[in-house]
Amino acid sequence: MVITISRETGSGGHTIGKLLAEKLGYAFYDKEIVASAAKEMGIDEKLILENGENMSDQDYIDRKSGLIPHYKQPDVPYEEIKEAQDKVIRSIADKGNCIIVGRGADYILRGRSDVLNVFIHADMEHRVRRVQRHEGVTGQEERIQRELEQKDRSRTMYYRYFTEREWGKVENYTLALDAGVFTKTQCAELIVKAVEMRVIIE
Amino acid sequence: MVITISRETGSGGHTIGKLLAEKLGYAFYDKEIVASAAKEMGIDEKLILENGENMSDQDYIDRKSGLIPHYKQPDVPYEEIKEAQDKVIRSIADKGNCIIVGRGADYILRGRSDVLNVFIHADMEHRVRRVQRHEGVTGQEERIQRELEQKDRSRTMYYRYFTEREWGKVENYTLALDAGVFTKTQCAELIVKAVEMRVIIE
Repeated sequence: MVITISRETGSGGHTIGKLLAEKLGYAFYDKEIVASAAKEMGIDEKLILENGENMSDQDYIDRKSGLIPHYKQPDVPYEEIKEAQDKVIRSIADKGNCIIVGRGADYILRGRSDVLNVFIHADMEHRVRRVQRHEGVTGQEERIQRELEQKDRSRTMYYRYFTEREWGKVENYTLALDAGVFTKTQCAELIVKAVEMRVIIE
Repeated sequence: MVITISRETGSGGHTIGKLLAEKLGYAFYDKEIVASAAKEMGIDEKLILENGENMSDQDYIDRKSGLIPHYKQPDVPYEEIKEAQDKVIRSIADKGNCIIVGRGADYILRGRSDVLNVFIHADMEHRVRRVQRHEGVTGQEERIQRELEQKDRSRTMYYRYFTEREWGKVENYTLALDAGVFTKTQCAELIVKAVEMRVIIE
Protein backbone atom coordinates (compact mmCIF):
# COMPACT_ATOMS: atom_id res chain seq x y z
CA MET A 1 0.00 0.00 0.00
CA VAL A 2 1.26 3.46 -0.97
CA ILE A 3 -0.13 6.51 0.80
CA THR A 4 0.44 9.88 -0.80
CA ILE A 5 -0.06 12.94 1.37
CA SER A 6 -0.70 16.29 -0.27
CA ARG A 7 -0.98 19.19 2.15
CA GLU A 8 -1.53 22.88 2.44
CA THR A 9 1.57 24.62 3.74
CA GLY A 10 1.52 24.74 7.53
CA SER A 11 -1.39 22.32 7.88
CA GLY A 12 0.72 19.70 9.63
CA GLY A 13 0.52 17.14 6.82
CA HIS A 14 4.23 16.31 7.07
CA THR A 15 3.97 15.52 10.80
CA ILE A 16 0.81 13.49 10.20
CA GLY A 17 2.71 11.50 7.56
CA LYS A 18 5.45 10.72 10.08
CA LEU A 19 2.95 9.67 12.77
CA LEU A 20 1.26 7.46 10.21
CA ALA A 21 4.54 5.84 9.22
CA GLU A 22 5.17 4.97 12.88
CA LYS A 23 1.67 3.60 13.42
CA LEU A 24 1.71 1.48 10.28
CA GLY A 25 5.40 0.60 10.20
CA TYR A 26 5.62 1.97 6.65
CA ALA A 27 8.63 3.67 5.07
CA PHE A 28 8.42 7.48 5.03
CA TYR A 29 9.53 9.69 2.16
CA ASP A 30 9.55 13.47 2.09
CA LYS A 31 11.45 16.09 0.11
CA GLU A 32 14.84 15.33 1.66
CA ILE A 33 14.56 11.59 1.20
CA VAL A 34 13.33 11.86 -2.38
CA ALA A 35 16.23 14.23 -3.10
CA SER A 36 18.77 11.86 -1.63
CA ALA A 37 17.28 8.94 -3.57
CA ALA A 38 17.60 11.09 -6.69
CA LYS A 39 21.25 11.74 -5.82
CA GLU A 40 21.93 8.01 -5.77
CA MET A 41 20.54 7.91 -9.28
CA GLY A 42 22.99 10.62 -10.35
CA ILE A 43 20.64 13.60 -10.18
CA ASP A 44 21.60 16.87 -8.51
CA GLU A 45 19.61 16.85 -5.27
CA LYS A 46 19.66 20.65 -5.00
CA LEU A 47 17.46 20.86 -8.09
CA ILE A 48 14.90 18.53 -6.53
CA LEU A 49 14.95 20.35 -3.20
CA GLU A 50 14.32 23.72 -4.82
CA ASN A 51 12.16 22.89 -7.80
CA GLY A 52 10.51 19.59 -7.01
CA GLU A 53 7.03 20.92 -6.34
CA ASN A 54 7.13 24.68 -6.76
CA MET A 55 6.85 26.99 -9.75
CA SER A 56 6.41 30.76 -9.84
CA ASP A 57 3.53 32.37 -11.72
CA GLN A 58 6.06 33.94 -14.09
CA ASP A 59 7.75 30.61 -14.82
CA TYR A 60 4.34 29.06 -15.45
CA ILE A 61 3.36 31.76 -17.95
CA ASP A 62 6.75 31.76 -19.69
CA ARG A 63 6.70 28.01 -20.11
CA LYS A 64 3.08 27.61 -21.12
CA SER A 65 3.47 30.36 -23.72
CA GLY A 66 6.84 29.00 -24.82
CA LEU A 67 8.17 32.57 -24.70
CA ILE A 68 10.99 32.20 -22.19
CA PRO A 69 12.80 35.55 -22.07
CA HIS A 70 16.34 35.40 -23.42
CA TYR A 71 17.91 36.74 -20.20
CA LYS A 72 16.47 33.75 -18.34
CA GLN A 73 18.46 31.19 -20.37
CA PRO A 74 19.54 28.70 -19.20
CA ASP A 75 16.40 28.38 -17.17
CA VAL A 76 15.49 25.95 -14.39
CA PRO A 77 15.29 22.57 -16.16
CA TYR A 78 11.86 21.74 -14.74
CA GLU A 79 11.14 18.97 -17.21
CA GLU A 80 14.37 17.09 -16.38
CA ILE A 81 13.84 17.54 -12.64
CA LYS A 82 10.28 16.27 -13.00
CA GLU A 83 11.33 13.25 -15.02
CA ALA A 84 14.02 12.30 -12.50
CA GLN A 85 11.71 12.80 -9.56
CA ASP A 86 8.94 10.76 -11.18
CA LYS A 87 11.40 7.91 -11.71
CA VAL A 88 12.46 8.05 -8.04
CA ILE A 89 8.86 8.09 -6.83
CA ARG A 90 7.82 5.18 -9.02
CA SER A 91 10.77 3.12 -7.78
CA ILE A 92 9.92 4.00 -4.16
CA ALA A 93 6.30 2.94 -4.71
CA ASP A 94 7.43 -0.34 -6.28
CA LYS A 95 9.31 -1.22 -3.09
CA GLY A 96 5.97 -1.54 -1.24
CA ASN A 97 4.33 -0.10 1.87
CA CYS A 98 5.26 3.56 2.15
CA ILE A 99 4.12 7.11 2.70
CA ILE A 100 5.14 9.86 0.28
CA VAL A 101 4.61 13.51 1.22
CA GLY A 102 4.12 16.05 -1.56
CA ARG A 103 5.88 15.98 -4.95
CA GLY A 104 2.60 15.52 -6.82
CA ALA A 105 2.95 11.80 -6.09
CA ASP A 106 -0.83 11.33 -6.32
CA TYR A 107 -0.64 12.23 -10.01
CA ILE A 108 2.59 10.37 -10.72
CA LEU A 109 1.08 7.15 -9.32
CA ARG A 110 -2.41 7.60 -10.82
CA GLY A 111 -4.05 4.48 -12.12
CA ARG A 112 -2.43 2.21 -9.53
CA SER A 113 -4.95 0.43 -7.32
CA ASP A 114 -2.60 0.15 -4.32
CA VAL A 115 -2.51 3.91 -3.73
CA LEU A 116 -4.52 5.91 -1.22
CA ASN A 117 -4.38 9.67 -1.81
CA VAL A 118 -4.79 11.88 1.23
CA PHE A 119 -5.17 15.67 1.35
CA ILE A 120 -4.59 17.59 4.58
CA HIS A 121 -5.81 21.15 4.93
CA ALA A 122 -6.53 23.59 7.75
CA ASP A 123 -7.92 27.07 8.10
CA MET A 124 -5.47 29.98 7.91
CA GLU A 125 -5.67 30.74 11.64
CA HIS A 126 -4.45 27.26 12.55
CA ARG A 127 -1.73 27.32 9.93
CA VAL A 128 -0.42 30.71 11.07
CA ARG A 129 -0.35 29.51 14.69
CA ARG A 130 1.59 26.41 13.65
CA VAL A 131 4.21 28.50 11.87
CA GLN A 132 4.48 30.88 14.84
CA ARG A 133 5.17 27.92 17.14
CA HIS A 134 7.60 26.44 14.64
CA GLU A 135 9.52 29.70 14.23
CA GLY A 136 9.20 30.55 17.92
CA VAL A 137 7.71 33.97 17.20
CA THR A 138 4.61 35.87 18.31
CA GLY A 139 2.64 38.21 16.07
CA GLN A 140 3.77 38.67 12.44
CA GLU A 141 0.49 37.11 11.30
CA GLU A 142 0.31 39.10 8.08
CA ARG A 143 3.82 38.20 6.96
CA ILE A 144 3.25 34.51 7.78
CA GLN A 145 -0.10 34.41 5.99
CA ARG A 146 1.45 36.02 2.90
CA GLU A 147 4.22 33.41 2.88
CA LEU A 148 1.79 30.51 3.31
CA GLU A 149 -0.39 31.74 0.46
CA GLN A 150 2.66 32.26 -1.71
CA LYS A 151 3.89 28.71 -1.04
CA ASP A 152 0.48 27.16 -1.77
CA ARG A 153 0.33 29.24 -4.93
CA SER A 154 3.68 27.93 -6.17
CA ARG A 155 2.55 24.35 -5.48
CA THR A 156 -0.66 25.03 -7.38
CA MET A 157 1.23 26.36 -10.39
CA TYR A 158 3.68 23.44 -10.42
CA TYR A 159 0.83 20.94 -10.20
CA ARG A 160 -1.19 22.73 -12.86
CA TYR A 161 1.79 22.91 -15.20
CA PHE A 162 2.57 19.20 -15.05
CA THR A 163 -0.81 17.62 -14.48
CA GLU A 164 -3.38 20.04 -15.94
CA ARG A 165 -5.38 19.22 -12.84
CA GLU A 166 -6.22 21.59 -10.03
CA TRP A 167 -4.24 21.07 -6.83
CA GLY A 168 -6.46 20.48 -3.79
CA LYS A 169 -9.53 19.55 -5.82
CA VAL A 170 -11.55 17.12 -3.74
CA GLU A 171 -12.06 14.62 -6.60
CA ASN A 172 -8.37 13.77 -6.69
CA TYR A 173 -8.20 12.44 -3.14
CA THR A 174 -9.45 9.24 -1.56
CA LEU A 175 -9.62 10.97 1.80
CA ALA A 176 -9.37 14.66 2.75
CA LEU A 177 -9.16 15.89 6.33
CA ASP A 178 -9.32 19.23 8.10
CA ALA A 179 -6.35 19.28 10.47
CA GLY A 180 -7.71 22.47 12.01
CA VAL A 181 -10.61 20.40 13.39
CA PHE A 182 -8.95 17.05 14.07
CA THR A 183 -5.66 16.77 15.96
CA LYS A 184 -2.68 15.34 14.11
CA THR A 185 -3.02 12.07 16.00
CA GLN A 186 -6.69 11.84 15.10
CA CYS A 187 -5.90 12.48 11.43
CA ALA A 188 -3.34 9.68 11.54
CA GLU A 189 -5.88 7.35 13.23
CA LEU A 190 -8.54 8.09 10.61
CA ILE A 191 -6.05 7.38 7.83
CA VAL A 192 -4.99 4.12 9.52
CA LYS A 193 -8.63 3.03 9.60
CA ALA A 194 -9.00 3.91 5.92
CA VAL A 195 -5.85 1.96 5.05
CA GLU A 196 -7.09 -1.09 6.96
CA MET A 197 -10.33 -0.96 4.96
CA ARG A 198 -8.44 -0.80 1.69
CA VAL A 199 -6.20 -3.68 2.67
CA ILE A 200 -9.20 -5.84 3.49
CA ILE A 201 -10.67 -5.22 0.02
CA GLU A 202 -7.43 -6.13 -1.82
CA MET B 1 -23.62 17.06 16.80
CA VAL B 2 -24.85 18.02 13.34
CA ILE B 3 -23.43 16.24 10.30
CA THR B 4 -23.98 17.85 6.91
CA ILE B 5 -23.46 15.66 3.87
CA SER B 6 -22.78 17.28 0.51
CA ARG B 7 -22.50 14.85 -2.37
CA GLU B 8 -21.92 14.55 -6.07
CA THR B 9 -25.03 13.30 -7.82
CA GLY B 10 -25.02 9.50 -7.93
CA SER B 11 -22.11 9.13 -5.50
CA GLY B 12 -24.26 7.40 -2.89
CA GLY B 13 -24.05 10.21 -0.34
CA HIS B 14 -27.76 9.99 0.46
CA THR B 15 -27.55 6.26 1.26
CA ILE B 16 -24.40 6.84 3.32
CA GLY B 17 -26.29 9.48 5.29
CA LYS B 18 -29.06 7.00 6.05
CA LEU B 19 -26.60 4.30 7.12
CA LEU B 20 -24.90 6.84 9.34
CA ALA B 21 -28.19 7.87 10.94
CA GLU B 22 -28.86 4.20 11.81
CA LYS B 23 -25.37 3.62 13.21
CA LEU B 24 -25.39 6.78 15.33
CA GLY B 25 -29.08 6.88 16.17
CA TYR B 26 -29.27 10.44 14.80
CA ALA B 27 -32.26 12.04 13.07
CA PHE B 28 -32.01 12.08 9.26
CA TYR B 29 -33.09 14.96 7.04
CA ASP B 30 -33.09 15.02 3.27
CA LYS B 31 -34.96 17.00 0.63
CA GLU B 32 -38.36 15.50 1.36
CA ILE B 33 -38.10 15.95 5.11
CA VAL B 34 -36.84 19.52 4.84
CA ALA B 35 -39.73 20.28 2.45
CA SER B 36 -42.31 18.82 4.81
CA ALA B 37 -40.82 20.75 7.73
CA ALA B 38 -41.10 23.88 5.58
CA LYS B 39 -44.75 23.05 4.90
CA GLU B 40 -45.46 22.99 8.62
CA MET B 41 -44.04 26.50 8.72
CA GLY B 42 -46.46 27.56 5.99
CA ILE B 43 -44.09 27.39 3.03
CA ASP B 44 -45.04 25.72 -0.25
CA GLU B 45 -43.07 22.48 -0.21
CA LYS B 46 -43.09 22.20 -4.01
CA LEU B 47 -40.87 25.28 -4.21
CA ILE B 48 -38.34 23.70 -1.84
CA LEU B 49 -38.40 20.37 -3.66
CA GLU B 50 -37.73 21.97 -7.04
CA ASN B 51 -35.56 24.94 -6.20
CA GLY B 52 -33.94 24.13 -2.88
CA GLU B 53 -30.45 23.43 -4.18
CA ASN B 54 -30.52 23.84 -7.95
CA MET B 55 -30.20 26.83 -10.26
CA SER B 56 -29.73 26.91 -14.03
CA ASP B 57 -26.82 28.78 -15.62
CA GLN B 58 -29.31 31.18 -17.20
CA ASP B 59 -31.03 31.93 -13.88
CA TYR B 60 -27.63 32.51 -12.31
CA ILE B 61 -26.62 35.00 -15.00
CA ASP B 62 -30.01 36.78 -15.03
CA ARG B 63 -29.98 37.19 -11.27
CA LYS B 64 -26.35 38.18 -10.85
CA SER B 65 -26.71 40.78 -13.60
CA GLY B 66 -30.09 41.90 -12.26
CA LEU B 67 -31.39 41.81 -15.84
CA ILE B 68 -34.24 39.30 -15.52
CA PRO B 69 -36.02 39.21 -18.89
CA HIS B 70 -39.56 40.58 -18.75
CA TYR B 71 -41.13 37.39 -20.11
CA LYS B 72 -39.72 35.50 -17.12
CA GLN B 73 -41.74 37.52 -14.58
CA PRO B 74 -42.82 36.35 -12.09
CA ASP B 75 -39.68 34.33 -11.72
CA VAL B 76 -38.81 31.54 -9.28
CA PRO B 77 -38.62 33.31 -5.90
CA TYR B 78 -35.22 31.84 -5.04
CA GLU B 79 -34.49 34.33 -2.24
CA GLU B 80 -37.73 33.53 -0.41
CA ILE B 81 -37.22 29.79 -0.84
CA LYS B 82 -33.68 30.12 0.45
CA GLU B 83 -34.74 32.14 3.46
CA ALA B 84 -37.45 29.64 4.39
CA GLN B 85 -35.15 26.68 3.90
CA ASP B 86 -32.39 28.30 5.97
CA LYS B 87 -34.85 28.83 8.79
CA VAL B 88 -35.95 25.18 8.65
CA ILE B 89 -32.36 23.94 8.64
CA ARG B 90 -31.32 26.11 11.56
CA SER B 91 -34.29 24.91 13.58
CA ILE B 92 -33.46 21.27 12.72
CA ALA B 93 -29.86 21.80 13.81
CA ASP B 94 -30.99 23.38 17.08
CA LYS B 95 -32.90 20.21 17.94
CA GLY B 96 -29.59 18.34 18.32
CA ASN B 97 -27.97 15.21 16.89
CA CYS B 98 -28.86 14.92 13.22
CA ILE B 99 -27.70 14.37 9.66
CA ILE B 100 -28.68 16.80 6.90
CA VAL B 101 -28.13 15.84 3.26
CA GLY B 102 -27.60 18.62 0.73
CA ARG B 103 -29.35 22.02 0.79
CA GLY B 104 -26.03 23.87 1.26
CA ALA B 105 -26.41 23.14 4.98
CA ASP B 106 -22.64 23.35 5.47
CA TYR B 107 -22.79 27.04 4.57
CA ILE B 108 -26.03 27.78 6.42
CA LEU B 109 -24.55 26.37 9.64
CA ARG B 110 -21.06 27.83 9.21
CA GLY B 111 -19.42 29.13 12.35
CA ARG B 112 -21.08 26.55 14.62
CA SER B 113 -18.59 24.32 16.41
CA ASP B 114 -20.96 21.34 16.68
CA VAL B 115 -21.05 20.75 12.93
CA LEU B 116 -19.04 18.22 10.93
CA ASN B 117 -19.15 18.81 7.18
CA VAL B 118 -18.73 15.75 4.96
CA PHE B 119 -18.33 15.63 1.18
CA ILE B 120 -18.93 12.40 -0.74
CA HIS B 121 -17.68 12.04 -4.29
CA ALA B 122 -16.98 9.19 -6.72
CA ASP B 123 -15.56 8.82 -10.20
CA MET B 124 -17.99 9.06 -13.12
CA GLU B 125 -17.82 5.32 -13.87
CA HIS B 126 -19.09 4.41 -10.39
CA ARG B 127 -21.77 7.06 -10.49
CA VAL B 128 -23.07 5.94 -13.89
CA ARG B 129 -23.20 2.31 -12.69
CA ARG B 130 -25.15 3.37 -9.61
CA VAL B 131 -27.74 5.17 -11.72
CA GLN B 132 -28.00 2.20 -14.11
CA ARG B 133 -28.74 -0.08 -11.15
CA HIS B 134 -31.17 2.43 -9.70
CA GLU B 135 -33.07 2.87 -12.97
CA GLY B 136 -32.78 -0.82 -13.82
CA VAL B 137 -31.25 -0.11 -17.24
CA THR B 138 -28.14 -1.26 -19.10
CA GLY B 139 -26.13 0.95 -21.42
CA GLN B 140 -27.24 4.59 -21.90
CA GLU B 141 -23.95 5.71 -20.31
CA GLU B 142 -23.73 8.93 -22.31
CA ARG B 143 -27.23 10.08 -21.42
CA ILE B 144 -26.68 9.26 -17.74
CA GLN B 145 -23.32 11.02 -17.62
CA ARG B 146 -24.84 14.12 -19.24
CA GLU B 147 -27.62 14.18 -16.64
CA LEU B 148 -25.21 13.71 -13.73
CA GLU B 149 -22.99 16.55 -14.95
CA GLN B 150 -26.04 18.75 -15.48
CA LYS B 151 -27.28 18.09 -11.94
CA ASP B 152 -23.88 18.79 -10.38
CA ARG B 153 -23.69 21.95 -12.45
CA SER B 154 -27.03 23.21 -11.17
CA ARG B 155 -25.95 22.53 -7.58
CA THR B 156 -22.72 24.40 -8.24
CA MET B 157 -24.58 27.43 -9.59
CA TYR B 158 -27.04 27.48 -6.68
CA TYR B 159 -24.20 27.23 -4.16
CA ARG B 160 -22.16 29.89 -5.95
CA TYR B 161 -25.11 32.25 -6.12
CA PHE B 162 -25.92 32.12 -2.44
CA THR B 163 -22.54 31.51 -0.82
CA GLU B 164 -19.96 32.93 -3.24
CA ARG B 165 -17.98 29.82 -2.39
CA GLU B 166 -17.14 27.00 -4.76
CA TRP B 167 -19.15 23.82 -4.23
CA GLY B 168 -16.96 20.76 -3.64
CA LYS B 169 -13.88 22.77 -2.66
CA VAL B 170 -11.89 20.67 -0.21
CA GLU B 171 -11.38 23.51 2.29
CA ASN B 172 -15.07 23.65 3.11
CA TYR B 173 -15.29 20.09 4.44
CA THR B 174 -14.06 18.51 7.65
CA LEU B 175 -13.91 15.15 5.92
CA ALA B 176 -14.15 14.20 2.23
CA LEU B 177 -14.38 10.61 1.01
CA ASP B 178 -14.20 8.83 -2.33
CA ALA B 179 -17.20 6.49 -2.42
CA GLY B 180 -15.81 4.94 -5.58
CA VAL B 181 -12.94 3.53 -3.50
CA PHE B 182 -14.63 2.88 -0.15
CA THR B 183 -17.93 1.02 0.10
CA LYS B 184 -20.91 2.89 1.50
CA THR B 185 -20.63 0.98 4.79
CA GLN B 186 -16.95 1.86 5.03
CA CYS B 187 -17.71 5.53 4.39
CA ALA B 188 -20.29 5.45 7.18
CA GLU B 189 -17.78 3.74 9.51
CA LEU B 190 -15.10 6.35 8.80
CA ILE B 191 -17.56 9.15 9.48
CA VAL B 192 -18.67 7.47 12.73
CA LYS B 193 -15.04 7.34 13.86
CA ALA B 194 -14.63 11.02 12.99
CA VAL B 195 -17.80 11.92 14.90
CA GLU B 196 -16.60 10.01 17.96
CA MET B 197 -13.34 11.98 17.86
CA ARG B 198 -15.20 15.26 17.67
CA VAL B 199 -17.49 14.32 20.53
CA ILE B 200 -14.51 13.50 22.74
CA ILE B 201 -13.04 16.95 22.10
CA GLU B 202 -16.26 18.78 22.97
